[in-house]
Amino acid sequence: MFPDYDVIVVGAGHAGCEAAHAAARMGSKVLMVTMNMNTIAQMSCNPAMGGVAKGQIVREIDALGGMSGIISDKSMIQFRMLNRSKGPAMWSPRTQNDRMRFSEEWRLALEQTPNLDFWQEMVKEVLVKNGRAVGIKTSLGLEIKANAVVLTNGTFLNGKIHIGEKNFGGGRTAEGAATGLTEQLVSLGFESGRMKTGTPPRIDGRSLDYSKMEEQPGDEQPAKFSYGDTKTLEKQISCWITYTNDEVHHELKKGFEKSPMFQGRIKGLGPRYCPSIEDKINRFAERERHQIFVEPEGWNTVEIYVNGFSTSLPEDVQYQALTKIPGFEKAKMFRPGYAIEYDFFPPTQLQLSLETQRVEGLFFAGQINGTTGYEEAACQGLMAGINAHNKAHSKEPLILKRSEAYIGVLIDDLVNKGTQEPYRMFTSRAEYRILLRQDNADLRLTEIGHSIGLASDERLEKVQTKKEHFNHLLQQLKKAKLDPAMVNDGLTQFNTSTIDEKVSVAHLLKRPQLSIKEIKALSTETRELLDKYSIEVQEQVEISIKYESYIDREQKLAEKIGTLEDFKIKSDFDYDRVKALSSEAREKLKKIKPETLGQATRISGVSPSDISVLTIYLGK
Amino acid sequence: MFPDYDVIVVGAGHAGCEAAHAAARMGSKVLMVTMNMNTIAQMSCNPAMGGVAKGQIVREIDALGGMSGIISDKSMIQFRMLNRSKGPAMWSPRTQNDRMRFSEEWRLALEQTPNLDFWQEMVKEVLVKNGRAVGIKTSLGLEIKANAVVLTNGTFLNGKIHIGEKNFGGGRTAEGAATGLTEQLVSLGFESGRMKTGTPPRIDGRSLDYSKMEEQPGDEQPAKFSYGDTKTLEKQISCWITYTNDEVHHELKKGFEKSPMFQGRIKGLGPRYCPSIEDKINRFAERERHQIFVEPEGWNTVEIYVNGFSTSLPEDVQYQALTKIPGFEKAKMFRPGYAIEYDFFPPTQLQLSLETQRVEGLFFAGQINGTTGYEEAACQGLMAGINAHNKAHSKEPLILKRSEAYIGVLIDDLVNKGTQEPYRMFTSRAEYRILLRQDNADLRLTEIGHSIGLASDERLEKVQTKKEHFNHLLQQLKKAKLDPAMVNDGLTQFNTSTIDEKVSVAHLLKRPQLSIKEIKALSTETRELLDKYSIEVQEQVEISIKYESYIDREQKLAEKIGTLEDFKIKSDFDYDRVKALSSEAREKLKKIKPETLGQATRISGVSPSDISVLTIYLGK
Repeated sequence: MFPDYDVIVVGAGHAGCEAAHAAARMGSKVLMVTMNMNTIAQMSCNPAMGGVAKGQIVREIDALGGMSGIISDKSMIQFRMLNRSKGPAMWSPRTQNDRMRFSEEWRLALEQTPNLDFWQEMVKEVLVKNGRAVGIKTSLGLEIKANAVVLTNGTFLNGKIHIGEKNFGGGRTAEGAATGLTEQLVSLGFESGRMKTGTPPRIDGRSLDYSKMEEQPGDEQPAKFSYGDTKTLEKQISCWITYTNDEVHHELKKGFEKSPMFQGRIKGLGPRYCPSIEDKINRFAERERHQIFVEPEGWNTVEIYVNGFSTSLPEDVQYQALTKIPGFEKAKMFRPGYAIEYDFFPPTQLQLSLETQRVEGLFFAGQINGTTGYEEAACQGLMAGINAHNKAHSKEPLILKRSEAYIGVLIDDLVNKGTQEPYRMFTSRAEYRILLRQDNADLRLTEIGHSIGLASDERLEKVQTKKEHFNHLLQQLKKAKLDPAMVNDGLTQFNTSTIDEKVSVAHLLKRPQLSIKEIKALSTETRELLDKYSIEVQEQVEISIKYESYIDREQKLAEKIGTLEDFKIKSDFDYDRVKALSSEAREKLKKIKPETLGQATRISGVSPSDISVLTIYLGK
Repeated sequence: MFPDYDVIVVGAGHAGCEAAHAAARMGSKVLMVTMNMNTIAQMSCNPAMGGVAKGQIVREIDALGGMSGIISDKSMIQFRMLNRSKGPAMWSPRTQNDRMRFSEEWRLALEQTPNLDFWQEMVKEVLVKNGRAVGIKTSLGLEIKANAVVLTNGTFLNGKIHIGEKNFGGGRTAEGAATGLTEQLVSLGFESGRMKTGTPPRIDGRSLDYSKMEEQPGDEQPAKFSYGDTKTLEKQISCWITYTNDEVHHELKKGFEKSPMFQGRIKGLGPRYCPSIEDKINRFAERERHQIFVEPEGWNTVEIYVNGFSTSLPEDVQYQALTKIPGFEKAKMFRPGYAIEYDFFPPTQLQLSLETQRVEGLFFAGQINGTTGYEEAACQGLMAGINAHNKAHSKEPLILKRSEAYIGVLIDDLVNKGTQEPYRMFTSRAEYRILLRQDNADLRLTEIGHSIGLASDERLEKVQTKKEHFNHLLQQLKKAKLDPAMVNDGLTQFNTSTIDEKVSVAHLLKRPQLSIKEIKALSTETRELLDKYSIEVQEQVEISIKYESYIDREQKLAEKIGTLEDFKIKSDFDYDRVKALSSEAREKLKKIKPETLGQATRISGVSPSDISVLTIYLGK
């Protein structure tokens, strides 16, 4: 009934979609198995992609040849570059999306992907033979063979939904949980845990009074995620900001005695940086208000998402508290918020390729690894899809370094440090964040994406052209000397000191008062010089000049650390032979099995002296 | 948390959507409660609306001010007027639809409906006080009050899905069943039964070889359902026709011993005229082949629907048999076909308003009444919504006569005859089918729809204009005399006898050889006369002239029967006092409680002599 597949992807959320697309695009025969083909690529939480650190990830996915950026662009209703007032390492693109469009665009894109088949059913078991994944078994009892299996089960594994004192099985509201798979994996020796996440009530936008809120429109000149040929928006829809207050908090507190969180019915840990509203008022009792970000769900629907008001308090408490928020006095709820508990597998059981250590050919991606967030899930799916393809074709895995991509940081963190609570990406997690910018993900990654057969030739050419233009412009800005007589008036006007002799444009551009915009205003010559190049190239050159010393410093550091990263450790290395290791280090090293000395340095519990011991031993 | 509503509609399929829209549009405060707001208005079966008799129903819904026609038009990918070669009573519009668009358009239309709120949850109970429905109770235990409740639970009540020897609870594939409500209604004294329906496997259209099938394109000049201002299609997508054969049947028979139908695991009766493929080859063993109608699922998706191949045989049997169908040799399945059993309530427990006899203010519509088909469900939803509004506002119910609408025929049949198997509409069920045409539903019903506050003023004006134009043109065609010298050449050319003296255009149009098209070709005068009017008016006049005698006959019959229909019987009439009634008639009359003498004539088991007895008794 089924052919033998190279790769089977279980699940069709952000991780599953990227995994299936990537493996199929690279040439694997892929089967995507989902419990419901009508719910492919649901945005289970808020209708937005990107944001701080996450926007960088979407750009990286796009640069490698993944689809999340393209789908986000096609379904966006608003675009904002966050943190534009800060340094370029902090610039973070974010889209608000039409929830229905997002899902439909993903499904259509997957349908148009050659080598990709679909099957709608629940997966009950990973078939394992001699320690290697060889396929899956479904709830109807079908056995489907594959060389590699990627699990992206999200919140569905034994999912349990809580609202106040009530709870029931489910993977998302109105969708059933997936049962059986955790138990089988545990019987194979996997360790599993429980996590929790939550979502706010959904509201009828017609019942809100926006005149009491602050409008947050999209950028005046909206950009987009993809480096490819997607389009920017001509019209956009605004979001709105309002705040909780004492009255809201008072109403919420009335429900605390029925809270599944506070009464201990929920065992799993929730995302620290995306807490429920009851958690916020409990943990930050001194704060008088919390921001509520009102997000439209699409171009036409009246449904809106109350970001910041995630809750599992009883539905009547949710409602009473909501109506105390300015603008929400007459709010009508469509569905209550809820918390959901689900199984995850501590990611220290993985290799950096996202293949499990225990079962060859079995990959985990997304929330099953203890992460939170669409972008975190999508990039893991992408890497798992790439590496499942590589595995099925006996190729080396692709592992991104911490200095190459946020994706590298994320997976390295997960595998080496594990996570006790849903892991979310922040710019602070990256030690090379001036290198890992949203503007240069294509320069960092598209060649890699192309070399593995994922990013298209057109993509590569586009990046190569961008690189050439960048080099040309950079040289020209260093070469072009400006005459004091020509520019001193302008410099005074921009509140920066005048010059006494001819200096290069590059030299002036280092001044904090002068950006590309001011440089252009200085003279016709500079304007004409710059305007020969695209905005992207101009920005790239500007960043490169302005932040040259920071970039250089991080690059040197990366190279230095890189020598440790290049120092491979065999997977069967016997740490017991290294007597001088601390016992904690030995235990962790045996568990995580770092693939390089660099990775070993980042394992919590492995001290610098342990690394010295190891380096000496391995140096023999 | 909730205001008191006028009407609560439970369910959001074709019936629920029409009910909620109609009641809200008429001014009721309405709450729609659905288990999943993401699955509003699913086409659970094939992606098409209308067809023989059903197309007429959609036109009637539209004429009354319902939405099914508008939604179908907005989401159509193909339009065909079926039976154009037959008489106008048989002309039946059908659209193929984009499944995702259909659902989304309905949801957006409902969201834009004033007075209509939404709540996502399962309903466990109808709240009843002193024999009257006063609201509902949800799975979270919420009690929501209303003056009237409409249940449109479709296949969800204790839904059980069968595939081969496996079965599991579910209201549709990948969606949970609704539990608790049947049991509560039975405890209130309602009688319930079990029915069964089924659906075919879904296929990856990329795996089919269309060169082995017959193409069925849309009409060259596609029309549309709505009398309103929806648009016709500029491009269309074709369907395809292929056939089963001996080999297919042979493969299917291999699964008979695992068939849930043949092995007695399915108790409910399925739709006789839409049987599963195994039923067809079993019941019509002499037929060498059965038609398979391959329907695209939308503008962009590759998924296709294999109409005619509904089955609950094991999935591997489905697959093997499919691959023996010409064009399906390499077919890839997305999901297997299945049968589903569900609870229904025999509709003899209803009044003609669709209000239950047992509980005042409680209305049933759609598959819960034992019907099958989107159109049958939608029109019941519309009537239940209208009458729930009327009930909530202490107005008289709207009951359409059998001579006014297929909708009248359908409800009259259900209430008076009940149904043992899923009830589907056919033209043969209507005794006045030359009156109940697809072209005149607006003339028949829009005034009614407007008078109850549902159809808009614009709709009414449009119909009034159409009527005026119709009358003008009819008079002119009767008046305009054609000169033999001018038209005899043409008449000869159209193979019809010449005329000796001046005759009216109307007179000539009665000839079977001459349609409006030929009449126009006869002379510049006739062309100019006709072209002053819209195609719709021309067709209307043509039908009126050509079928005058048939129309007159049915109209007279309807008037005659109408006198019986006008003869009301009080709901508390004591049939025991009419000693001369046969005991069967007495039993049925007491159960069904006919509202008029006309209705009494149609109750099976009530003979003409019983009617005579009743007439005499009531005549007192």
